[in-house]
Amino acid sequence: MTMTPTVKAILANYESDNPGVKANLARILMQGRLGGTGKLVILPVDQGFEHGPARSFSVNAPAYDPHYHFQMAVDAGLSAYAAPLGMIEAGASSFAGQIPTILKVNSSNSWATGANQALTGGVDDALRLGCSAIGFTIYPGSDDCFDMMEEIKEMRAEAASVGIATVIWSYPRGGALPKSGELALDVGAYAAHMAALLGAHIIKVKLPSDHVEQKDAQKAYEGTDWSKQSDRVAHVVKACLGGRRIVVFSGGAAKGEDAVFQDARDIRDGGGNGSIIGRNTFQRSREDALAMLDRLVRIYKGEE
Amino acid sequence: MTMTPTVKAILANYESDNPGVKANLARILMQGRLGGTGKLVILPVDQGFEHGPARSFSVNAPAYDPHYHFQMAVDAGLSAYAAPLGMIEAGASSFAGQIPTILKVNSSNSWATGANQALTGGVDDALRLGCSAIGFTIYPGSDDCFDMMEEIKEMRAEAASVGIATVIWSYPRGGALPKSGELALDVGAYAAHMAALLGAHIIKVKLPSDHVEQKDAQKAYEGTDWSKQSDRVAHVVKACLGGRRIVVFSGGAAKGEDAVFQDARDIRDGGGNGSIIGRNTFQRSREDALAMLDRLVRIYKGEE
Amino acid sequence: MTMTPTVKAILANYESDNPGVKANLARILMQGRLGGTGKLVILPVDQGFEHGPARSFSVNAPAYDPHYHFQMAVDAGLSAYAAPLGMIEAGASSFAGQIPTILKVNSSNSWATGANQALTGGVDDALRLGCSAIGFTIYPGSDDCFDMMEEIKEMRAEAASVGIATVIWSYPRGGALPKSGELALDVGAYAAHMAALLGAHIIKVKLPSDHVEQKDAQKAYEGTDWSKQSDRVAHVVKACLGGRRIVVFSGGAAKGEDAVFQDARDIRDGGGNGSIIGRNTFQRSREDALAMLDRLVRIYKGEE
Amino acid sequence: MTMTPTVKAILANYESDNPGVKANLARILMQGRLGGTGKLVILPVDQGFEHGPARSFSVNAPAYDPHYHFQMAVDAGLSAYAAPLGMIEAGASSFAGQIPTILKVNSSNSWATGANQALTGGVDDALRLGCSAIGFTIYPGSDDCFDMMEEIKEMRAEAASVGIATVIWSYPRGGALPKSGELALDVGAYAAHMAALLGAHIIKVKLPSDHVEQKDAQKAYEGTDWSKQSDRVAHVVKACLGGRRIVVFSGGAAKGEDAVFQDARDIRDGGGNGSIIGRNTFQRSREDALAMLDRLVRIYKGEE
Amino acid sequence: MTMTPTVKAILANYESDNPGVKANLARILMQGRLGGTGKLVILPVDQGFEHGPARSFSVNAPAYDPHYHFQMAVDAGLSAYAAPLGMIEAGASSFAGQIPTILKVNSSNSWATGANQALTGGVDDALRLGCSAIGFTIYPGSDDCFDMMEEIKEMRAEAASVGIATVIWSYPRGGALPKSGELALDVGAYAAHMAALLGAHIIKVKLPSDHVEQKDAQKAYEGTDWSKQSDRVAHVVKACLGGRRIVVFSGGAAKGEDAVFQDARDIRDGGGNGSIIGRNTFQRSREDALAMLDRLVRIYKGEE
Repeated sequence: MTMTPTVKAILANYESDNPGVKANLARILMQGRLGGTGKLVILPVDQGFEHGPARSFSVNAPAYDPHYHFQMAVDAGLSAYAAPLGMIEAGASSFAGQIPTILKVNSSNSWATGANQALTGGVDDALRLGCSAIGFTIYPGSDDCFDMMEEIKEMRAEAASVGIATVIWSYPRGGALPKSGELALDVGAYAAHMAALLGAHIIKVKLPSDHVEQKDAQKAYEGTDWSKQSDRVAHVVKACLGGRRIVVFSGGAAKGEDAVFQDARDIRDGGGNGSIIGRNTFQRSREDALAMLDRLVRIYKGEE
Repeated sequence: MTMTPTVKAILANYESDNPGVKANLARILMQGRLGGTGKLVILPVDQGFEHGPARSFSVNAPAYDPHYHFQMAVDAGLSAYAAPLGMIEAGASSFAGQIPTILKVNSSNSWATGANQALTGGVDDALRLGCSAIGFTIYPGSDDCFDMMEEIKEMRAEAASVGIATVIWSYPRGGALPKSGELALDVGAYAAHMAALLGAHIIKVKLPSDHVEQKDAQKAYEGTDWSKQSDRVAHVVKACLGGRRIVVFSGGAAKGEDAVFQDARDIRDGGGNGSIIGRNTFQRSREDALAMLDRLVRIYKGEE
Repeated sequence: MTMTPTVKAILANYESDNPGVKANLARILMQGRLGGTGKLVILPVDQGFEHGPARSFSVNAPAYDPHYHFQMAVDAGLSAYAAPLGMIEAGASSFAGQIPTILKVNSSNSWATGANQALTGGVDDALRLGCSAIGFTIYPGSDDCFDMMEEIKEMRAEAASVGIATVIWSYPRGGALPKSGELALDVGAYAAHMAALLGAHIIKVKLPSDHVEQKDAQKAYEGTDWSKQSDRVAHVVKACLGGRRIVVFSGGAAKGEDAVFQDARDIRDGGGNGSIIGRNTFQRSREDALAMLDRLVRIYKGEE
Repeated sequence: MTMTPTVKAILANYESDNPGVKANLARILMQGRLGGTGKLVILPVDQGFEHGPARSFSVNAPAYDPHYHFQMAVDAGLSAYAAPLGMIEAGASSFAGQIPTILKVNSSNSWATGANQALTGGVDDALRLGCSAIGFTIYPGSDDCFDMMEEIKEMRAEAASVGIATVIWSYPRGGALPKSGELALDVGAYAAHMAALLGAHIIKVKLPSDHVEQKDAQKAYEGTDWSKQSDRVAHVVKACLGGRRIVVFSGGAAKGEDAVFQDARDIRDGGGNGSIIGRNTFQRSREDALAMLDRLVRIYKGEE
Repeated sequence: MTMTPTVKAILANYESDNPGVKANLARILMQGRLGGTGKLVILPVDQGFEHGPARSFSVNAPAYDPHYHFQMAVDAGLSAYAAPLGMIEAGASSFAGQIPTILKVNSSNSWATGANQALTGGVDDALRLGCSAIGFTIYPGSDDCFDMMEEIKEMRAEAASVGIATVIWSYPRGGALPKSGELALDVGAYAAHMAALLGAHIIKVKLPSDHVEQKDAQKAYEGTDWSKQSDRVAHVVKACLGGRRIVVFSGGAAKGEDAVFQDARDIRDGGGNGSIIGRNTFQRSREDALAMLDRLVRIYKGEE
């Protein structure tokens, strides 16, 4: 694995991290068809926990099998595969060394009444399963947010001490934040910033709208045109320690292919590092999914 | 103990587990009259804790004695015996090596006002008592569900580290889930799926009805006929990592023998691994119970 | 200390316990005038914590002195002395080796608003003070009962690991349980059963009335005549793992001598192991108390 | 330091304590002008935490300096100096070996809404600062009292294990206890008793009034004349394990000298061990305080 | 680094601290243009966490880059740079040895509904990042204040044990304290005093107004003219263990340069040790900020 100058430059920004963490970031950045470009596409499959198995997999029954997703990530030449404990355990040995894995260590479900998640995996699990990173969700705004932050503070420190990187899913939700503000530009940038301050190596946020939610933040956004999605991506990138951290954007609910591709182009043009794309992958047939991922990869390579 | 190809195939699905855990799963799968078939019948006696001693044992007074149940499991050629600390301790030495035991490590009781359980045993207990597995109940849907999940996450990791397997009783209850939805098909499949994601080696759920409870899940079930119980069993099996995990079904309250036998046939035909059957066993006379268990075993062997 | 067959038979029921715990149970069972009979009378003095010093000791002022109670237990030939930390510490050295002690490790007081207790002693204390056992109260039914169970689960395991036995005071109280049901037969048997399942080596409950409190339990008690106290004792004994655990009954508030003696005869005739008798001891003059205890001992020896 | 028979007799009551704890109790009992008499006067300066610096020290500005209090305790020939972490740290090196110190390890403040305190120091701090004891406040009656008891249970054990003594401030407050009952005789004796049961080596309570607060305790106090303060002191002493524990009384808010002296005579005549006197010391000029403390010492020596 | 007599005198007040902590305090006191004077100016950049990135940095976009602030602190000859984990990590290696750093280990954000903060960094982080101190905020008055105090008690002890100093931000807020009283003189002095009692090596408070908030404290302030800010600073200094602790004052929201300079003169004249000045620094252009900091330094040097 010869490191490209682009990846070297990205890793140089992680100046306080140990070689173990850098090696795992390198593994992700050098993996698959986007390896070496500084861009990445990650396949996450935690929807079974979040929404239940039938809502997630019945539309494409082979997806009930954990091996299906490993194989998809490998065959599509993606950068990494992220999933909860049971999903990783069921394939980690068969696919060992074929694709970097991210162990999602906390999870919610359809019945949760509060905005929080349960810890469902640990750093020890990530180590024994050969994972490159742990993934953790925080809900900025929620009443339990301080607790979630303290959990990831502990886990990140433990993970880094054994050379495992940390990915933070930062999803504003709950507390005094109205549903209508969850996708606001100021809210998204703030959520990304806090993930960066908490020491995330990779930050995962949703693509923000041009709405500004917080009254106190209005002034900071006035006088700038935020209608272009790529500009909003660039703003979020800046909020991630001035672009010194890898940031990927999620695609949300399954949607049309054209919207998926346009999002990718905007992420790319705004300086974001890539997409994390789950339901839009596995809720299509394997054939359709591979075709869509192929085109996504080509967009990030600047080929279309 | 020569492993059968069937059991080897089942164990192969536990590809990330260590030899200690696999050995204990093998002990259960190779035990008794169903040994080697991939099917199993487990005797659980935790009703004294859940409902009190008189409601559980007065109908068949010899059952007050912990030795009675060990002997029953041995004599009927069952796969394993599951009970809380006091029950196991009172017979573990006398019956050492005769039947694999599962230490039920959390328990509720008739006076509980919330949907939770108390930790009443530990991995250290399981080790010193020679148990093959720990058993833990989660209540998906309950307000305390995240806490329960975090407890079993810790205990499962500790148990696995010393080669002990984990059985999760996944019983939807509490929170926003109405009583009427606890046995729904979507709810049961989701509960089984979460147990699998939490890393359960054996999953224990109730036989689901054909009701679909969650509005968001309706679409995933529409257009399929769920009236056959064996199809519902097959759906739950699929939700357990595409059939890569052992799943057993509980019989519920004491009922007629014919219903017990029909349930077993449906579990078998739907690809489930077996029954876990308590009150239907010890609330009959020893003679009747042995006769019933004999026929149950024959059903799982495909002999009737 | 030559073990009698009776005590050997009792100890044989503790088949999963280590020699250290058995040795401490043996010390209690072989102590004093009832030594070797399988019966025991324990002196508990924790009423200073529960009700305050003046209410407990002003009627018999010498009882303010901790040495008074040690001496009483020794002189009356009792089986063991149970008290909170301060009381034990104040005499443990002077009376070392003269009487087995039980360190009461949790305590409540008159001002408690909820049904719970504070941990006020530990296994380390029991070890350094030469105690044979720890004593712990649970309140089945209370909102905090799961917490109490988890506390004693931990402490019992720790105590057993260093050869110290565990006595559980199981007093139904709080939550959905009405005051009128605390002494009910079903409630008492259930409370004793849960203490046994939690791994108590000695179970302490109150003598139950013939009232049945729980609607779901009515059926199990119908058709039997529960008017004789010795039958109710026998039922509680059965609930303690079919008689495999030592169970002692408390005397409650100070009362007439005749009632005390009748209770002892019923406990003896029902197969219970003995009495734990505090206020009825130290709220009499030393002379009266010694006379009363002498007769109690003779009753348990079957001499009257 | 040749031990006097009086001090030897006091130490003999601590029969379960290790030599390290006894040595520290001896240091306090042999210190200063009351050394060897079995009486003691302690200077506590935690009012800055409880009431704020200006309310505590502005009336006598030199008292803002932590060294002022160390010097006062030394110059007045007192038995010990008690204060929170910052106060001790600021003088512990300058005055090392000149006066035994008691590290107050929990503290409240004027803004506290509930009856509890924060842990603000630890046994490790006491060790590195050369303290002879830790001081801890419990609020019997408060809703958080069980928590406070569990905290001091842990800290006392840790302290004793390294030879450090424990002083418990037992101040009834909160919960179902009305303000008017905080100084009642039954309440004070009960509070002292619980501190003793928790294993306090030195017990600090307030001088009780002749009011009896608890209905259930009325009977125990009826028929005795409690109008003499020295009798009430004697009752509290008896509640401290029959006089086997050192008990000191606090002076409360700054008041006239005559009242201070009368209190001391009553404590002495009732068999109490001494005074703990803060605001009445440092809210006078140094000259006045020294004169007052001189007379207090002479009272305890029986010289007036 | 030859220590000046002034710094030696300050360090002598930390008489109970180990050489490691003293060395780190010395590093801060000997750093930059104020090195050796006993005065200091600290640059804190935690506003991204507290208020969000856009509100903090959009007015001066280069400030999005963590390196910008390190460089500013170095170029302006300041004493130390304080920031949360992500900000320190992003520059700690590039600027290693150029400026002492203070890791802010707890943080709040705009969505917090209660007056508390999340732990977002630890002593291990401070060690591996080469920080001289940790920074921790307490909110005296808040309902969670006891918890915050217990957190810093633990962290301070851990930090000191490895030679790292502790800075406490003491900001009265929440609970029974009205917004209007947060800046009151009595409140500010009390907050500073509690930080000192908790063992802070450096205390950070806001400049107080001449309002006295607490009724009980009125008497202590009556009869003195508190209209001069330098007198109020002197009062706060006295509350910090009679001037034995370093105390710095924060500048609050961005304001006019003249106000900033006058504040510094008052801090200097009242005996305070310096300023901690964030938004007033980085929300100006680099050129303006450097000019302002230059003048601030000259004021503390007594040059204007």
